[in-house]
Amino acid sequence: VTRIVCQQLAPRVGDLDGNRIRSTRAVSEAVDLGADVVVLPELVTSGYVFESQAEAAALAIDPSDELFGEWAAQAARGSAIVVGGFCELAEGGRLYNSVAVVDGSGVLGVYRKTHLWDREKLFFEPGHEPPPVFDTPYGRLGVLVCFDVEFPEMPRLLALAGAEVIVVPTNWPLTRRPANEPVPGVIVAMAAAYVNRVFVACCDRTGKERGQEWEAATTIVDPGGRVIARQNGEGATLADVDLELARDKALTDLSDALGDRRPDLYRTLADVPPGSGP
Amino acid sequence: VTRIVCQQLAPRVGDLDGNRIRSTRAVSEAVDLGADVVVLPELVTSGYVFESQAEAAALAIDPSDELFGEWAAQAARGSAIVVGGFCELAEGGRLYNSVAVVDGSGVLGVYRKTHLWDREKLFFEPGHEPPPVFDTPYGRLGVLVCFDVEFPEMPRLLALAGAEVIVVPTNWPLTRRPANEPVPGVIVAMAAAYVNRVFVACCDRTGKERGQEWEAATTIVDPGGRVIARQNGEGATLADVDLELARDKALTDLSDALGDRRPDLYRTLADVPPGSGP
Repeated sequence: VTRIVCQQLAPRVGDLDGNRIRSTRAVSEAVDLGADVVVLPELVTSGYVFESQAEAAALAIDPSDELFGEWAAQAARGSAIVVGGFCELAEGGRLYNSVAVVDGSGVLGVYRKTHLWDREKLFFEPGHEPPPVFDTPYGRLGVLVCFDVEFPEMPRLLALAGAEVIVVPTNWPLTRRPANEPVPGVIVAMAAAYVNRVFVACCDRTGKERGQEWEAATTIVDPGGRVIARQNGEGATLADVDLELARDKALTDLSDALGDRRPDLYRTLADVPPGSGP
Repeated sequence: VTRIVCQQLAPRVGDLDGNRIRSTRAVSEAVDLGADVVVLPELVTSGYVFESQAEAAALAIDPSDELFGEWAAQAARGSAIVVGGFCELAEGGRLYNSVAVVDGSGVLGVYRKTHLWDREKLFFEPGHEPPPVFDTPYGRLGVLVCFDVEFPEMPRLLALAGAEVIVVPTNWPLTRRPANEPVPGVIVAMAAAYVNRVFVACCDRTGKERGQEWEAATTIVDPGGRVIARQNGEGATLADVDLELARDKALTDLSDALGDRRPDLYRTLADVPPGSGP
């Protein structure tokens, strides 16, 4: 059994030091809860609502930053894996909306968000690599960031690459809708889990930031598309999952969620429109 | 405004004549309700739970069958488009789980289900063509059949081809689950509508057939992923929709549901595994 703990925090934009302390404390608490996999929100180190590219740049860090050493030190206490978002400073001063995957030894890898949402395009470069799958002692972890999951191609790519659980650091902006309507991101996560027979763990955030509110809808979904844990306030959302369930793609003796795909019919999906850049 | 009417019927397996009468009456009633687009269940002409390939073959018809003439005559009374499933007899005695799109002039086209569910594989040949989009006076209609919609590639292909509404004749077998859990097919339809900004109209069936029960969960979803009409019994599910909403893929000034795709990253989706047939 793998214990997944999502930590729904309230990062503060601009407060690098405070966010370092808050996120490290959240990792520590998750490890105390016995977490094997700890998921933190998108951009948990920097906050989200930047006023300018200059502000984002001032909050950007690289994977050698001491913050990841602090996450790693906490992870080491419990042999946990930590997945959390950060504002990445890269070659040439380029900024990415990235996620670091960290274990007790340090940073295992970084994924740079490929589908940037709205004003993120003003601050960040989009990632140019497909989403990665990390082979960990707790199973095969795929990584996406927030808006990525609304492109069903993305969880599908991860499932085809063998991901058993897809972890999704997010910052879901609050949408106006009738009280009985579900959070769109949760519907999309449920469908992604169901059609790919994988676990999906979305870690959202709380805390109004420059007027922006959030869904605060951290949700863990099983391969049947069922919500097995959810959270509306601050703190830990915990699920004990059997990743073996995500290895079996059989739906019946004759049907298979991935095996019944018809890639011969899907060519258009990879067609790059003429005139669009790489 | 386009009026969509789904007619959730109870076809009876083996009762070709009765199913012809029932389905034609359903089209007639939908036209009386002012339907522009009428959706009928999967395999409405034959029933679903075949005992053998021979039984399916005995219930198969081709697009020149008089049944489609009867649907067309009713469609003509209201200039409606009718989309309904049938057991298709094709060249060489091959059988397909097909859908006919019919207007007052007759059969406009046929789509052969490409993702066969479970025992359908014992009776039917899978279709070898991508799902079609029909340009009608009421907008661009994409067609899928039941299990097809659980492959997110399929609604995506239709949205990329310009579909504004995806109509899905289905026979959703009843699944056992806690009473408060949603129908998996509905979750998948909601996500498909939301991520593609299209309407999705799934027409399910009722009536126990050889012990098999059905979800009877006919549902129409808008491009925001909201359920705008649903049905749990027999009869008409009606929605008046503005297809203009499905033409606009903008999510914000800077984000676009289709324009933000990254086809350069999606190549794997069209990779046919080595050794698999066409």
